[in-house]
Amino acid sequence: MTDSKGETYDPREFRGLTFHDMTEKFRDGSDTPRDYLERCIETIAVREPVVKAFAALNEDGAREAADASTTRWKDGRTLSAIDGMPVAIKDLLETKDMPTQMGCDAYEGNFPKRDNAAVWALRQAGAVVFGKTVTAELGGSHPGPTTNPYDPSRTPGGSSSGSGAAVATGMVPAAIGTQVGGSIIRPAAFCGNVALKPSQGGINRGERQATSMSTHGVHANCIEDMWQVAIEIAARTGGDRGAPGLIGPPTPPAASKPARLIVVESDGWAILDDSSKSAFEILMEGLQSQGIELLRRRNSTSVEQLEKAIEGAGDICSAITAWENHWALRNLIDEKPDGVSQRIKNTVASAEAMSPEDYRLALLDREKAQATHAQVGGIADAIVTLACPGPAPLWPGDIPGEPLAPRPTGDAIYNYPSSMLFAPVVTVPLMSVGGLPVGLQVMGRQGEDARVTAIARWLKDSVTPVSVD
Amino acid sequence: MTDSKGETYDPREFRGLTFHDMTEKFRDGSDTPRDYLERCIETIAVREPVVKAFAALNEDGAREAADASTTRWKDGRTLSAIDGMPVAIKDLLETKDMPTQMGCDAYEGNFPKRDNAAVWALRQAGAVVFGKTVTAELGGSHPGPTTNPYDPSRTPGGSSSGSGAAVATGMVPAAIGTQVGGSIIRPAAFCGNVALKPSQGGINRGERQATSMSTHGVHANCIEDMWQVAIEIAARTGGDRGAPGLIGPPTPPAASKPARLIVVESDGWAILDDSSKSAFEILMEGLQSQGIELLRRRNSTSVEQLEKAIEGAGDICSAITAWENHWALRNLIDEKPDGVSQRIKNTVASAEAMSPEDYRLALLDREKAQATHAQVGGIADAIVTLACPGPAPLWPGDIPGEPLAPRPTGDAIYNYPSSMLFAPVVTVPLMSVGGLPVGLQVMGRQGEDARVTAIARWLKDSVTPVSVD
Repeated sequence: MTDSKGETYDPREFRGLTFHDMTEKFRDGSDTPRDYLERCIETIAVREPVVKAFAALNEDGAREAADASTTRWKDGRTLSAIDGMPVAIKDLLETKDMPTQMGCDAYEGNFPKRDNAAVWALRQAGAVVFGKTVTAELGGSHPGPTTNPYDPSRTPGGSSSGSGAAVATGMVPAAIGTQVGGSIIRPAAFCGNVALKPSQGGINRGERQATSMSTHGVHANCIEDMWQVAIEIAARTGGDRGAPGLIGPPTPPAASKPARLIVVESDGWAILDDSSKSAFEILMEGLQSQGIELLRRRNSTSVEQLEKAIEGAGDICSAITAWENHWALRNLIDEKPDGVSQRIKNTVASAEAMSPEDYRLALLDREKAQATHAQVGGIADAIVTLACPGPAPLWPGDIPGEPLAPRPTGDAIYNYPSSMLFAPVVTVPLMSVGGLPVGLQVMGRQGEDARVTAIARWLKDSVTPVSVD
Repeated sequence: MTDSKGETYDPREFRGLTFHDMTEKFRDGSDTPRDYLERCIETIAVREPVVKAFAALNEDGAREAADASTTRWKDGRTLSAIDGMPVAIKDLLETKDMPTQMGCDAYEGNFPKRDNAAVWALRQAGAVVFGKTVTAELGGSHPGPTTNPYDPSRTPGGSSSGSGAAVATGMVPAAIGTQVGGSIIRPAAFCGNVALKPSQGGINRGERQATSMSTHGVHANCIEDMWQVAIEIAARTGGDRGAPGLIGPPTPPAASKPARLIVVESDGWAILDDSSKSAFEILMEGLQSQGIELLRRRNSTSVEQLEKAIEGAGDICSAITAWENHWALRNLIDEKPDGVSQRIKNTVASAEAMSPEDYRLALLDREKAQATHAQVGGIADAIVTLACPGPAPLWPGDIPGEPLAPRPTGDAIYNYPSSMLFAPVVTVPLMSVGGLPVGLQVMGRQGEDARVTAIARWLKDSVTPVSVD
């Protein structure tokens, strides 16, 4: 149902484009990866003019790859369970057959003839690398042109704006995003995707190793596709240097009902609108009615300790990341002063006011929070919390002459904690507020990626989503 | 004294080009950074035709930077203690004013207009970034054209071949090197430099973050210059993302006599020639005669435990690094099949036979060795060991039709342990064998960079070097 505001979203009805349930037809010849791709291309033709999810497309290359996959399915020689899957790549990652412009004027026309490690692995697995999705500038907060699939006057979230929107609209069944603060989970939550932000280091970031808490992750419309994409990449390139990489089964973990969950309110609770708070509490009551014990700051001193440990996560994440990027950004600004936004320049200025000692102290804050999480996390099967502070906000663009809006892609306040904790997190589209998606996220301790995926799968299968006006 | 084999080396006589002891003259106007630079350029004119230390030079840019520094010294407005110091940069690191060709045909003409973080920091500190030094191909073992300053038929060591040779010959007082296995300490030891390979993550590697155990480090002719360069960089860009960075005083640590040292023999002992073993034992006797207690595997079960923990370090380092580089190298080979050496191709093939599980097990071996070192290291002030297995070997070049020589830049067998342990190490030129330099290295636990520097300074000041035929 399309109207001037895009599709209307109801999490109880929504069925996004999936892949894993189509492969039987590829095997028996009643469908092919090439036909699957053509349907994606048709959807792009319909939705892209308003949604603007893509920074680049390589339809010819995709058709060639889909044809090769079609042959492999016919011959029973597939390379993996995602052979033939169209996958879109956030335009921060290098791709040898498409430009990598990072949403940044300074990189206009940038076209290294290399594949990022994850892209390389996807091709090795037979996936159809298909397009580059819009990113906020350099993965920060200065937005690109993408609009929210359910209301073009709202942000899709960022920085993985195009990945979230492309998956939501069925342009592709899966897309790669990246997160430093909230850049996977926030757009996924605003667009109604499922998404995995793995444990820090879970998926090899290839050339994108500059920051200590960035991860690659996967946007999809079902847990099965999400996990399969992640594990196929990790099987081929492993995790970041020095990290054990994503650990888990070679096929999606079975759904697992949790007995006990920690509910984290975090800094976001104070800014949460009443409708979203209400949706979340109804959802929590639903979990309790299924016999799941909930531990919250109001009934658990351990949870209160955890809440205290993640206070100010946004400031800590922002300071660490600004420092880690500042030399490279200063290089870029020196080379092309007009090639980056004022938002980036402001971030660099804040980093240049820091000393190595300031950075060390921020690292120490992060380590203390991680130590608390490692201790306290064990009292329950996982943590649940909102994936975003309510639905996607309106974003009409910067107004000339006015101060810059501080959060044009929405507030990552619910995402900083998992980023700071290096914790795996899966968002599940279990709420809507005013006809717009709001995600619930499941967070585990470092390395518990498969466990949170199994719990997220159970939630998606077994919990009735909540819609409030 | 120059003959057909280059300078004859005697560690008791050798006085290399230094910088810290010249700055008083810059201040009083009896010398200037520009004149200092011109003397370096004159030395290059004399030595470079045989030594071949440089892949690129930017004399005009250097003169301009030296003139600016000259003015700052006159005006009392210097940016740091290394203002005006000519520093050469290993050609793996990006420099905005010179090509970055990495000793690899595939990168011929590569000229990104960016500065590596360390280069950026050096310029911020007023140093004169001067030239790019020859590296073995991509920091591996396929050698470039540089020859050993004391015998042109021998290797200078690798992969920081040009940095080691340029400092030894007085072309520059300091140069940046990088080490994954043995690429700073080995060439420094073969060329008679002092050099610091910091604790893992000590100096921000900038764009070169691909591997988990690579560090930037400093080659110099004295401890003072070595430390000052390292700490000025760290003060401006800190360490690698997530690491606290090099910690220590803002000026060179005072010499510190150790009371007790661990002597490590390691895997290298079995292949060591008799003359080098003899030089090392004479040196150890000298330490004992100064009242320093030596703990060795023969008299300490703790040391024996440490020796066991670092057995096979070369295989572990090589497996980890091969895996971490394999995706990027495969990209490069796919793009430019004739652009990389057979040595690199062999390494990629070995990595492609590995699984993520093999990599995880190698990481685990590394972590176990680090845990042992953390425990055992505390029984003494530091560890001493050879920095190379004897003097630089002959390297007449590959012979067409013959199998590739496995170690054309010499064996890193004495360097893998500190790389694997993420341990800070300083090499000091305290031996010569057959008229060629052999280094002694001082190793500490992670973060003890200043301590090993202080001990190395004491050794250089207070121990008579040993020469054997």
